[in-house]
Amino acid sequence: MNQFINTRESLVTEAIDGILRLSDGNLARLDGFPHVKVVLRTDWDKSRVALVSGGGSGHEPSHAGFVGRGMLTAAICGEVFASPSVDAVLAAILAVTGPAGCLLIVKNYTGDRLNFGLAAERARTFGLKVGMVIVDDDVALPDLPQARGIAGTLFVHKIAGALAERGADLDTVTQAAWSVIERAASIGMSLDSCTIPGVGKEDRISAGKAELGLGIHGEAGAEQVAFHGARAAIEMVVERLEPYMGDTPHAALLNNLGATTTLEMSVLCEELCQSRISDQISWMIGPSAMMTSLDMHGFSVSLLALTDEDEHALQAPVAPRAWPGMHRIGKVRILPLPDGLAPIPPLASSNAKNRELIESCCRALIAAESNLNALDAKAGDGDTGSTLATAARALIEALDRLPLADWTQLFRAIGLELSQTMGGSSGVLLAIFFTAAGDASSSGCNLVESLKAGLERVAQVGGAKAGDRTLIDALHPALEALPRGLAAAARAARDGADRTAAITRAKAGRASYLSAENLAGINDPGAEAVALLFEHFVS
Amino acid sequence: MNQFINTRESLVTEAIDGILRLSDGNLARLDGFPHVKVVLRTDWDKSRVALVSGGGSGHEPSHAGFVGRGMLTAAICGEVFASPSVDAVLAAILAVTGPAGCLLIVKNYTGDRLNFGLAAERARTFGLKVGMVIVDDDVALPDLPQARGIAGTLFVHKIAGALAERGADLDTVTQAAWSVIERAASIGMSLDSCTIPGVGKEDRISAGKAELGLGIHGEAGAEQVAFHGARAAIEMVVERLEPYMGDTPHAALLNNLGATTTLEMSVLCEELCQSRISDQISWMIGPSAMMTSLDMHGFSVSLLALTDEDEHALQAPVAPRAWPGMHRIGKVRILPLPDGLAPIPPLASSNAKNRELIESCCRALIAAESNLNALDAKAGDGDTGSTLATAARALIEALDRLPLADWTQLFRAIGLELSQTMGGSSGVLLAIFFTAAGDASSSGCNLVESLKAGLERVAQVGGAKAGDRTLIDALHPALEALPRGLAAAARAARDGADRTAAITRAKAGRASYLSAENLAGINDPGAEAVALLFEHFVS
Repeated sequence: MNQFINTRESLVTEAIDGILRLSDGNLARLDGFPHVKVVLRTDWDKSRVALVSGGGSGHEPSHAGFVGRGMLTAAICGEVFASPSVDAVLAAILAVTGPAGCLLIVKNYTGDRLNFGLAAERARTFGLKVGMVIVDDDVALPDLPQARGIAGTLFVHKIAGALAERGADLDTVTQAAWSVIERAASIGMSLDSCTIPGVGKEDRISAGKAELGLGIHGEAGAEQVAFHGARAAIEMVVERLEPYMGDTPHAALLNNLGATTTLEMSVLCEELCQSRISDQISWMIGPSAMMTSLDMHGFSVSLLALTDEDEHALQAPVAPRAWPGMHRIGKVRILPLPDGLAPIPPLASSNAKNRELIESCCRALIAAESNLNALDAKAGDGDTGSTLATAARALIEALDRLPLADWTQLFRAIGLELSQTMGGSSGVLLAIFFTAAGDASSSGCNLVESLKAGLERVAQVGGAKAGDRTLIDALHPALEALPRGLAAAARAARDGADRTAAITRAKAGRASYLSAENLAGINDPGAEAVALLFEHFVS
Repeated sequence: MNQFINTRESLVTEAIDGILRLSDGNLARLDGFPHVKVVLRTDWDKSRVALVSGGGSGHEPSHAGFVGRGMLTAAICGEVFASPSVDAVLAAILAVTGPAGCLLIVKNYTGDRLNFGLAAERARTFGLKVGMVIVDDDVALPDLPQARGIAGTLFVHKIAGALAERGADLDTVTQAAWSVIERAASIGMSLDSCTIPGVGKEDRISAGKAELGLGIHGEAGAEQVAFHGARAAIEMVVERLEPYMGDTPHAALLNNLGATTTLEMSVLCEELCQSRISDQISWMIGPSAMMTSLDMHGFSVSLLALTDEDEHALQAPVAPRAWPGMHRIGKVRILPLPDGLAPIPPLASSNAKNRELIESCCRALIAAESNLNALDAKAGDGDTGSTLATAARALIEALDRLPLADWTQLFRAIGLELSQTMGGSSGVLLAIFFTAAGDASSSGCNLVESLKAGLERVAQVGGAKAGDRTLIDALHPALEALPRGLAAAARAARDGADRTAAITRAKAGRASYLSAENLAGINDPGAEAVALLFEHFVS
């Protein structure tokens, strides 16, 4: 079994109960499991025309998912891809049909026609008014007089549902349904077949091929075609639908046949909206899974030439959550990028002391390049030294354009410089450190407080804290000690860096992927760099 | 390419435009394609706290699908499974953040943390108030301090969204978000990995196995486990979540990871509602695709120990259609089967003439069994004779209990008898014929009119008409001629039956699958049976 089911036999009944539990009490089922699987509205008073549909399961959310105010009154669920029995259909009709009568909406498959048809006859012997329409929207095989019923069935459910809800009589609802059926055209395309519970998946579509004109029961499509991506797929579908289009505006229903990703469905939607029939399509229903074929990796497009009445009916609000609504196809609204994305270069200013300090730090890091790399080779991927040296060289290069006279501006400028010249996580983390320090400095923090604020932000964003074997283990104690002088800070940084050699379980950064044996006795190279920096000042 | 896309490079931008077109103008994007992919509300006035989320694409409908009133203000979309750039995040923040500030909701992945983190710093240099929370709801690897952010992120979007919409300030929204993150726990399970555009699918889960504790980027799950169906799957998931559950009622979020069928999701939902933690789960969000991993065949369960405030916030209506709402888990409502399913046996009555007529017809059909079979062997599967003979034998058997004195009752009783004793399509069609004839008779039609009404119904339900090479081709002309006498009817039936031999393109029934050469010169066996019957009366 490679599906999330228990047994094939219990699949449909369990799924129905799963739906009913979340229906807020608005849906119930008849007490006929496992043979009679009928989902029906509890908020139904038989004063209006009942709409009953159904068929084999495997097309979810059809049909049980469309039972509710404004759409179906009841759905009869067969086993997967198998028509429900006459008794099950009759049970549904008898349960929901009152004086206003009942319309059966049947997809054009022999089993469904016969079983719904006989159930209708038997219901009529009780004096009930029962109409039946047969949906045959599939245009895959224009020569076949018995076209299949596929996703265009949803147009019928929705439009008949709106009419019935408004209190139209059986004749009106039936005629409207027939009229919708005459004007609906659908076609599907798939890149893979579906997995039938207990049977499996037929592997019949080879790479580079698609099936065009497929039914919803895993049967082979009308033809295999070469597949050249989403645009060509929509073009082929459009070509088949065009001959059936009227002059009035159309609604398109873009149906996910099961396992197509939301990304793909959105791309197909965009292609349909850009296709050569786009001028004739005003409204879109979906993209959404409405009439599926289990996990088929495919889609179908259904078109309906709209009357004003249809447009109104398709827009009417309904209870079933599976109905995705109909939305007008509009233009893509594009707003200008906000100001401030291109950073304003800071105004350079001079300060000999700060310049010397920065340059000295940078040179110390450059000098430590190979030692730090060697350390990192044991605990990471050996590039900590080079990463820091590269950043240091870039900063030396930038000294002339830095705002050296103003710590707030200087921190921010260093952050910006590093984010632009230093790659990888460490570049981003150092940029966060300096930018946040500048932020703190601008709020009036002194140098040490600002650096602490930067460190705090790095810790938060990087998800590391003291003891996690990162540069925090040296920098945090150093900044804590700094008010007592540089020597104290340097001692604290060194102690902290050396302590990292005993931390054999890194909790953040690259070292977290290494085993304890690899890390034991090795200082964290980031912490070591911090210690070297502070020691450089007091040397 | 085995996906409905155009190119990997254009996938995300095309999908975004596909969404925007259907947003009724409520969503727009920034003018930064392809680098800056930001979807944002157009109905946004910056007076409230902006909520910004995002990350790599491939998790649709997250995150763009959750932008709208009551949820996110903007979403930044990276390429598939790749963090968006700092510039893209900054663009989103700058575009939507006003005096009330902005909260970044970030899933716990290094790239997202860093890029969102640095963008936040850069935004702060503009004087903007920017908070950031990091979601780490995945409990798959309890020892890993950096738990991943998965579908539990939706709790944060929804609850923070409701607060922001109500005008709560940044501190309140941020604290609420952190509180939700602390209380949220999620775990996923999958039967297959996902198809990464341009890369393909890693085939790493063998039959009979599942991966438990998976991320949402196609990476391997925390462990491979034996798979024993939906119930056992939910049990495993529940076992991992239980240690994180509080004492208060919980909301469960049942997420489709991509390609799981609606049927399977409903079964999983039912199992969760029946699991040993069901007493502690009051509400369900989903089952629905909310945080997917492309087309992964899997699901995840997220739990949140609810405060009253959360309950309220999770129920608040929102604009994004991808939010499935939160529904109270209720009992399955079961209604009694309606009366009338068990057919009431008709009261037997006597009429010698009718009895003789029926018996004579039946014997004629029995006598024709092998001839009709032989004919059908050439045009179908060779059982028309046996099918009819079986029905005839059953009717003879039933003569004593038939209401022979009343045509209305008799037609109905024959219909019922045939539907119970005759298999296959022909049994149903004959049952429809007689039941509909009884229906017409009850409305006052005479015998011939009633039989015509029956035929009309059979034609409608069976989808056949004159000229389609069915029994209609003999029965229809015979009934038309019947008012002129039995001999005329027999001649008409014979002519009609013989004409079927020239119909080489059957449009209904089994013969529609046969080629013209197979059918040429062969009478349709059903039409032939009708002709034989009428000829029997005049012989």
